[in-house]
Amino acid sequence: MRYFVIVGHKASTTGNFKLDDISGGAGRLDILIRCVNSAFFLSHNVRRDTELYLVLQGGDDPPKTVRFSGAELRYLNPDERSTSSLIRNALLKKIDEEEKKSSPGIYVSRMSFGDVVKMLSERGKIIYLKEDGEDIRGTEIREDPVFVMSDNRDLTEDEELILSGYGPEKVSLGPYSLHADHCMIIVHNELDRNTH
Amino acid sequence: MRYFVIVGHKASTTGNFKLDDISGGAGRLDILIRCVNSAFFLSHNVRRDTELYLVLQGGDDPPKTVRFSGAELRYLNPDERSTSSLIRNALLKKIDEEEKKSSPGIYVSRMSFGDVVKMLSERGKIIYLKEDGEDIRGTEIREDPVFVMSDNRDLTEDEELILSGYGPEKVSLGPYSLHADHCMIIVHNELDRNTH
Repeated sequence: MRYFVIVGHKASTTGNFKLDDISGGAGRLDILIRCVNSAFFLSHNVRRDTELYLVLQGGDDPPKTVRFSGAELRYLNPDERSTSSLIRNALLKKIDEEEKKSSPGIYVSRMSFGDVVKMLSERGKIIYLKEDGEDIRGTEIREDPVFVMSDNRDLTEDEELILSGYGPEKVSLGPYSLHADHCMIIVHNELDRNTH
Repeated sequence: MRYFVIVGHKASTTGNFKLDDISGGAGRLDILIRCVNSAFFLSHNVRRDTELYLVLQGGDDPPKTVRFSGAELRYLNPDERSTSSLIRNALLKKIDEEEKKSSPGIYVSRMSFGDVVKMLSERGKIIYLKEDGEDIRGTEIREDPVFVMSDNRDLTEDEELILSGYGPEKVSLGPYSLHADHCMIIVHNELDRNTH
C-alpha cells in the first residue's frame, strides 16, 4: 500500500462552501483536491494500492480527516469540481467518534494530524517530503510507505514535532520546490519503476 | 526552452461553454486545463522557460491553438476554474490570419496541429510521449525539446503521419500509461535534474 497524508491548514471542515469557490472560501481546498487526482489516476485505471488522507484544519469544525481508499473508490472523476462535491458531501455528514462512510471509498472522521500519523506509523515508515531531504532516487523506499506533506503553508512547529516522534525519513524529489500534487506524481512514478 | 503540445480532439473552439461544465460541454477541456497547471507551476514560481500549445479541434470553429508563454504569463492561478476562464476569454477573441494576444502570456490563433508541429520542429527535436518509447531516463534530451502528447484519445492516424514527417523520438516515462498532465510533471522533473 502507498499512503499519502496532506494537511490543509485552512481547509474547510463544514462543507458550507460553494463549488465555484474552492480556492477562496473553502480555504485552499483546491490544493487538496488536486492531490486526490494525483493520488489515484492512471490513464485508464485507478490506483487501488493507494490511500490518501486529507487532514482539514480550517473552518468552524476542525479537525476532520477525509480518507480516500483506492481499493473501494467509485464515482471519482479527474476534474476539480466533481471531487469538491464528493468532499463537500463527506463534510456534510454528521459524525461523532467513529469514522463514517460518505460514498464508496470515501470516509470522514474526527482524526487530527497526530491521530492519522500515529495510526499510519504502525503500518509503514513515515516519509516527510522536504526540499532538504535525501534524493528519492537512491533512497530505498520500503513497503507501505507513508508520505507526509503540507499544503501551501509549511507544517507548523507542533506538526513537525509530532512527526519527529516517529523518526521520519526526509526525502526530496529534485532541485525545485513543487506543489504537493506534483510531488505525488513523482513519488508514484519512482515507486512504479521500483516495484513493477 | 521547453515546449509542450497537446491535442484536444473534441475541445471547444468557440468559448460558448460554462465554467461549471469544462469536462462535459467543453469537450474535455478539463484535460488541457490541468496541463496548463503542470506546465507552469513551481511551488512559489512560474516556469518561465516553458511554452504550452493547446491545439483545440472540437466545437464549431476548429482548429484553434491557445499558446501559453511562461516568460510573459501573469494572472495564472492553479485551479481549473480560473484557467478555464482565461482560455474562454482567448476563444472569444475574433481572430483572422494573425495570432492575437488575449491576456499577458496567452495567445490564440488559427494554427492547426500540423502548423504547430512544423513551426516548433524548427526550434527543437520533436519528442512523442508514448508508452512504447525509449525510457526518458537514459535518453539524452537535447536543448529546446518539443514534447507532443494527446488528450484522452490517441493521436489520429493523420496526426501520427504528420509527426512522423519530423522523425520524432518516442519516449516513455515509466511502466504505466498516465494522464497528459501527469506526464508533464515527470518530464519537467527529469529535465530539472539534468539541467540544474
